[in-house]
Amino acid sequence: MTTQHTPFARKLGAFVALSPEELGLLDQLHSRRRTFPALRDMVYEGQVERSAYILASGRVCSYKLLPGGTRQIVDFQIPGDFLGLRSVLFRTADHNIEPITRVQASEVQAQDLLDAFNTAPRLAAAVLWAASRDEAMVVEHLVDIGRRDAKQRMGHFLLELGARLKLVGLGSSDGYNCPLTQYLLADALGLSAVHVNRVLRELREDGLVSFQQGKVIFSDFDGLVEFTEFDRHYLDHEGPLMK
Amino acid sequence: MTTQHTPFARKLGAFVALSPEELGLLDQLHSRRRTFPALRDMVYEGQVERSAYILASGRVCSYKLLPGGTRQIVDFQIPGDFLGLRSVLFRTADHNIEPITRVQASEVQAQDLLDAFNTAPRLAAAVLWAASRDEAMVVEHLVDIGRRDAKQRMGHFLLELGARLKLVGLGSSDGYNCPLTQYLLADALGLSAVHVNRVLRELREDGLVSFQQGKVIFSDFDGLVEFTEFDRHYLDHEGPLMK
Repeated sequence: MTTQHTPFARKLGAFVALSPEELGLLDQLHSRRRTFPALRDMVYEGQVERSAYILASGRVCSYKLLPGGTRQIVDFQIPGDFLGLRSVLFRTADHNIEPITRVQASEVQAQDLLDAFNTAPRLAAAVLWAASRDEAMVVEHLVDIGRRDAKQRMGHFLLELGARLKLVGLGSSDGYNCPLTQYLLADALGLSAVHVNRVLRELREDGLVSFQQGKVIFSDFDGLVEFTEFDRHYLDHEGPLMK
Repeated sequence: MTTQHTPFARKLGAFVALSPEELGLLDQLHSRRRTFPALRDMVYEGQVERSAYILASGRVCSYKLLPGGTRQIVDFQIPGDFLGLRSVLFRTADHNIEPITRVQASEVQAQDLLDAFNTAPRLAAAVLWAASRDEAMVVEHLVDIGRRDAKQRMGHFLLELGARLKLVGLGSSDGYNCPLTQYLLADALGLSAVHVNRVLRELREDGLVSFQQGKVIFSDFDGLVEFTEFDRHYLDHEGPLMK
């Protein structure tokens, strides 16, 4: 597993030690590459055309719009993540997906996935692992909003995003590039933009982490882990479980 | 697909029209049946023994304990649901699972699942669908806590649970048996027990739904759907997608 592989292969490779044949099958899933501009929904709730995407570059967010007009960002996706996997498996998309930056993504249809599972059932286990990991992150966000205070919530979020980016080669324990605005953070964390601004200032003044000019820098990584009670077990990537 | 099949087979059958061979494989997953008493954790966070279960009868809840002692119930599981699927795929359990009633459950190991996927790759797609549906429910709970008021949240929760129970033959649009206490509802919905009590009284007085003596009765199902903006697309079971 080297950097020449796609972020998707790097991510699944954290769960399954992929054979050359399995890597070849993953490459085939990237044959329909498309480019999407920022800020225009790629997938919208209620859409019946069942396509999913694997994100190759850029950043997107997935969100639900409530009828009253408020929006809840469910998660941000980074390279290697599935976009709209549920839309492929279900008949209709149950959420919206909006590119935050210009993105490149590979279109995947239900049949492509089923064909790959037929040829290499271990890939099914790997995709199931990736989906379970996504669920684990949503669970953490639920805990965030239900039970963590705003400062812990923000710190926890920045650590989680860092761990995910590190896995696909886009970040380190020092920090990472982050194109998210304070408005996006607010809609993800259930805070107001003003509150986001204040919490980020407090975390910076505490010497734990700074987020300025599109860069997250961990000034005290271990301190932030302790403060936020961040337990990275739920992200689980200490090397492949299936050899 | 008849009532003689397990709730698990009924649930997966909503996604894949199962062949006799596939049903036989699902039956084999039920060979290690175990009984668990109420109120003692079946799986605890940090546990490294990697077993999952398929719930055959009874009710359980999955929850995270925060170091401060508060708990967030992530979801309730009903017959046919996986318990601790993530614990099998990951190295350690990332949450706790506690029986609310006495339960019967079948132990499933990672290898059992992989063997079944190898023999019948369509089962992998069905399990992936079930896991995605679980994620969709957690997403709704995130929206609940982030953006819905207490009364809508409660109504939405009771409708969702009803739709899930109906799928496995344990409920109808009239209502269902529900062994959940107000304390459990409080920990799931991010409310106090007193608040739960008040919200349930308001919903009953509005003539929408009552929850008394272990029974949920929908007095005005359509009215409750409208009030809570309940969109059952994310539960998606209008008949098998894969024939």
